[in-house]
Amino acid sequence: MTNQPIIILVHPQLVENIGMTARAMANCALTELRIVAPRDPWPLGEVHLQRMMAASSGADSILEKAKLYDTVEEAIADLNHVYATTSRTNDMTNRIMTPRAAIPDMVERTRNDEKVGVLFGPERMGLINDYVAMAGTKITIPLNPDFMSLNLAQCVLLIGYEWYQANDSTPANQIRLGKSRPATRDEYQNFFNRLQMYLDEAGFFTADDQRPVMSRNLQASLQRAEMTEQEIRSWHGVIKALVLGPRRSTPSKLVEDEK
Amino acid sequence: MTNQPIIILVHPQLVENIGMTARAMANCALTELRIVAPRDPWPLGEVHLQRMMAASSGADSILEKAKLYDTVEEAIADLNHVYATTSRTNDMTNRIMTPRAAIPDMVERTRNDEKVGVLFGPERMGLINDYVAMAGTKITIPLNPDFMSLNLAQCVLLIGYEWYQANDSTPANQIRLGKSRPATRDEYQNFFNRLQMYLDEAGFFTADDQRPVMSRNLQASLQRAEMTEQEIRSWHGVIKALVLGPRRSTPSKLVEDEK
Repeated sequence: MTNQPIIILVHPQLVENIGMTARAMANCALTELRIVAPRDPWPLGEVHLQRMMAASSGADSILEKAKLYDTVEEAIADLNHVYATTSRTNDMTNRIMTPRAAIPDMVERTRNDEKVGVLFGPERMGLINDYVAMAGTKITIPLNPDFMSLNLAQCVLLIGYEWYQANDSTPANQIRLGKSRPATRDEYQNFFNRLQMYLDEAGFFTADDQRPVMSRNLQASLQRAEMTEQEIRSWHGVIKALVLGPRRSTPSKLVEDEK
Repeated sequence: MTNQPIIILVHPQLVENIGMTARAMANCALTELRIVAPRDPWPLGEVHLQRMMAASSGADSILEKAKLYDTVEEAIADLNHVYATTSRTNDMTNRIMTPRAAIPDMVERTRNDEKVGVLFGPERMGLINDYVAMAGTKITIPLNPDFMSLNLAQCVLLIGYEWYQANDSTPANQIRLGKSRPATRDEYQNFFNRLQMYLDEAGFFTADDQRPVMSRNLQASLQRAEMTEQEIRSWHGVIKALVLGPRRSTPSKLVEDEK
């Protein structure tokens, strides 16, 4: 991603939250941070600096490259489109979007080489209406209306998370195979046939008319397991051990011949 | 939501993270927390208790109702389906899902009255393979592979956020109107006609052949603004003020008659 949204903290109060914001940004592969008139003046004193760095959990480079501004106007001056996060319900007329609805538009803009940024207001208060009015898109994160206390860095994380997902190609549902591969239908069938043979020998199917139904049910539960070739081999071993019992459960010439 | 996923923290190290987990849960309207053998033994001493409660930012009731367990086995005993969060890439064969892919399944299960829970491992280490193996579904959150330090409570937040979104009916894109309503096409057209009339009078369209193109462009930019009825009225006032100039910009009998 060459072009990504710039995170803009407006009047942040706590240096810990600036540090945690950098950490959340790093989690989402965002690198550009702008800070407008933080409560503690920059450059920070030693104590504040250490608290911020500790909270960033190693996202130092984002903090070191962060740019400081006196006003929101200056911080957004070079941007083509601004998103404002707000939980306010006020009398202002606003088109409000969820992050999930707003992010595809953000992705499109960055791909069209627009420079975009997201405004986050100070802890507790959020963005004042004057700053919300400066933004082309207003974003409100749908969360529990009975517990609105969303930490600043967590708000950044949720926007960054949605951004990352929109640009990510991780399969939604994948098998990590370790050293094996998914079993073939043939390997599945061989295993089930052997299981059924042993069960017949052991007199498992007491009534002949139950056999097809029970057999299908057993097979269905095996199918749901979606085993690997390695796992099928392990279960061959399990069955063999059960059939041969304690005296014979160590591999013997006879067992090997059975393969 | 009567039936919701239970959040299960396995061997959490820091009481602050337990408190922040409760806060993240409250943000996502999750209420049931289980804790397996935390590092600091429960009931917590006064200092630990205060640190946890401070970090929870008012999500006290979740912490007060939290249940303590000695083992993961006991903590999941009554559940029908368990999800394990893991960032591990190991030799285990695992079907790994993204939260976004796993949550619809979770919603279905809870609607079918299955009792489900999500396991979160200790800070730094994550869940050990023994616990991952106990889960029916493994979840890995796709985030920056070059910066894997995701805070425990933030991991809970992202799962809870996806859960909340899947159950939420907030319109993806809505107009909050304050005290007005979207303008009608007629109100738009009246405004534009008046604007054009004043521009004609002022000699704005210098060349006759430019008039249709410029007129269309002006109209298009007004359309994109998607104004309310109140805003259209304000812009009528703006134009009037500009035309009448400083001496007449206060509402006068004459201006009122023009309406």
